[in-house]
Amino acid sequence: MEEKKRTSSESALHKKMKAVTDLKTLGEALYHQIEQGEFPWIKMPTRSIDNIYYSPELRQYILGERRVKRSARNIRHIRPFTQLVWTAFFAHQLSTQRKTSTLRDVYYSAQAYEMSFKDQSESDNVITDLETVIGLAREDFNVFPEERSAVFGDLTIEYTVPGYEGRRMNMTSHPDGLMIGPALTYSELVKTSADKVIAIEKGGLFTRFIEENVHKKFNALLVLTAGQAPRATRHFIRRLNKELELPVYILTDGDPWGMHIAMVIISGSANAAHLRGLATPDAKWSGVWATDIVDYKLPTDPLTEIDVKRLHELQRDPRYKAKLWQREIKTFMKIRKKAEQEAFSRYGLTYIVDEYLPAKLEETK
Amino acid sequence: MEEKKRTSSESALHKKMKAVTDLKTLGEALYHQIEQGEFPWIKMPTRSIDNIYYSPELRQYILGERRVKRSARNIRHIRPFTQLVWTAFFAHQLSTQRKTSTLRDVYYSAQAYEMSFKDQSESDNVITDLETVIGLAREDFNVFPEERSAVFGDLTIEYTVPGYEGRRMNMTSHPDGLMIGPALTYSELVKTSADKVIAIEKGGLFTRFIEENVHKKFNALLVLTAGQAPRATRHFIRRLNKELELPVYILTDGDPWGMHIAMVIISGSANAAHLRGLATPDAKWSGVWATDIVDYKLPTDPLTEIDVKRLHELQRDPRYKAKLWQREIKTFMKIRKKAEQEAFSRYGLTYIVDEYLPAKLEETK
Repeated sequence: MEEKKRTSSESALHKKMKAVTDLKTLGEALYHQIEQGEFPWIKMPTRSIDNIYYSPELRQYILGERRVKRSARNIRHIRPFTQLVWTAFFAHQLSTQRKTSTLRDVYYSAQAYEMSFKDQSESDNVITDLETVIGLAREDFNVFPEERSAVFGDLTIEYTVPGYEGRRMNMTSHPDGLMIGPALTYSELVKTSADKVIAIEKGGLFTRFIEENVHKKFNALLVLTAGQAPRATRHFIRRLNKELELPVYILTDGDPWGMHIAMVIISGSANAAHLRGLATPDAKWSGVWATDIVDYKLPTDPLTEIDVKRLHELQRDPRYKAKLWQREIKTFMKIRKKAEQEAFSRYGLTYIVDEYLPAKLEETK
Repeated sequence: MEEKKRTSSESALHKKMKAVTDLKTLGEALYHQIEQGEFPWIKMPTRSIDNIYYSPELRQYILGERRVKRSARNIRHIRPFTQLVWTAFFAHQLSTQRKTSTLRDVYYSAQAYEMSFKDQSESDNVITDLETVIGLAREDFNVFPEERSAVFGDLTIEYTVPGYEGRRMNMTSHPDGLMIGPALTYSELVKTSADKVIAIEKGGLFTRFIEENVHKKFNALLVLTAGQAPRATRHFIRRLNKELELPVYILTDGDPWGMHIAMVIISGSANAAHLRGLATPDAKWSGVWATDIVDYKLPTDPLTEIDVKRLHELQRDPRYKAKLWQREIKTFMKIRKKAEQEAFSRYGLTYIVDEYLPAKLEETK
């Protein structure tokens, strides 16, 4: 096992330090404007739909050139401008005091400062503004999602959170899996013997894979996404791919929703067009494909109207332009059926590990 | 720290061994009936609503005396009888081969045996029948929920799952928390320095508590329920209470749904009236109470119509008969408001730990 320890530019710790610096720089710029006798202002790319483009080069959505200026000079801007400055102040506090928070927490915390948001969606939106201004994800300034997913396999990490600095932990230590929360997000990836990552949508299959020693048999790190992967998990998967140079394979249910779970890991979402560093463009969707449903004669359920509507949306989505995706969308529409990962159990509980998984890892290599 | 290691009758490992014995006994009884020239049959308590009673003594729902007989003699019984026997066979296989499964997996696995269930709800129902017949929860014969929650704090456990037998692990090892899955469920509780358990509804607050060292300051084990606690988690909380004799305090959002998350941990659900060993009747709901919303002047949202309807249901529910619950239901109805756990952040991020938590632990002791 080669030690890969270093503070990579991809690492959350690095980004977190950058967030503190950038927040400070932002504050200094505002002070400077005031000292110059100017009304303070902030410029940022606009996130309106007509400024969101798909970049085939970056293989994710990005924002275009259009920018907006928020200035204290404009009376209609004073409220959102003040909210943004307060949010930057609060994010800086969280980061320097090493406390994590959630979107909801930030909303309520504002009240401690008599900073008024009319509801949480207003404060969520200002947090997204702050992400846009400094070009970093909210996790980088310590605002985390509620949801947790997990990891298992031979990966040694080193913690950087208070009380655990320098302590190492191997991700096989607990056979139910280790939660991906702030501590794991901020850790350094020290070493691994794995040569691939397998991301799995569902808890039952994640456990099955651990029990069947998929991590050993396939030399793999296993990541549970628990449905749509939380942002912290998407960032973690990217780090495994970029820092440790591990290929990533994603296994979901065979339906438009499973497909999109894979796509958001691969190409991100339009909502995060203002961010880099969450997507893993080289990750592969390994199944369950519509064509697998046919080839493996899986037990199925009929597509619902909502499923079909969703397929039509995906068909027009620029992220789904590649041949594989278009073929699978068409096949779903043709067979009008969907299948879950567990459907392979019709051939016995271990069929998915013994037969399907090796075939698909080979096919999507 | 006193070592408490023993295979308690509450432990999942003990129950799992009992499940294997009971399943074998069930099979032997059927063989015996056939050898005697009888059509094989099974008797079990009926789970129809008119046979479900609340037991103030056990402080949970129980089944009454009415029983049903399923016999191969009755042509209408042959299908559910065969399904039940197959499910018992499959559960025995899972248990002896030490593989875990999910409800969905069992449904699909049936197809490998040409055992037909018309849909998953039919197979789920037969699994509940099997629980009723042998009086053990499906987790005891290795059928686990998809959902995962987590634990953190000074508790040392010893694994019993294959590959980990005899290995010990302390639940402070990973500061994001350790998942509660099959491995933790089947482990022995070896020792703890904690003198209480605090169960928390939400991931954000669970992380906050870890960061603020609640486990040290309050000598507590922290359990994340992640919304409604999965059955494996409710069983785990009960074990902490019964085997380690730790009092349990539950913190939820201040609304009818949070209230009920606490109640299901305390008194179980009507759906599980055929089971013992999931409820923790001595656990306390410590907040957020409706009266806390008033006393602490928390930021609130108005109750919705669905919230109010739910309160009326709870008011008539026998589990909610005690004074505290009735008072809180009435207060909710009077103030027509609800508040989330995060609402305390209006007094600063650590207020909930510094002020609210100690006050409520004292009040509900």
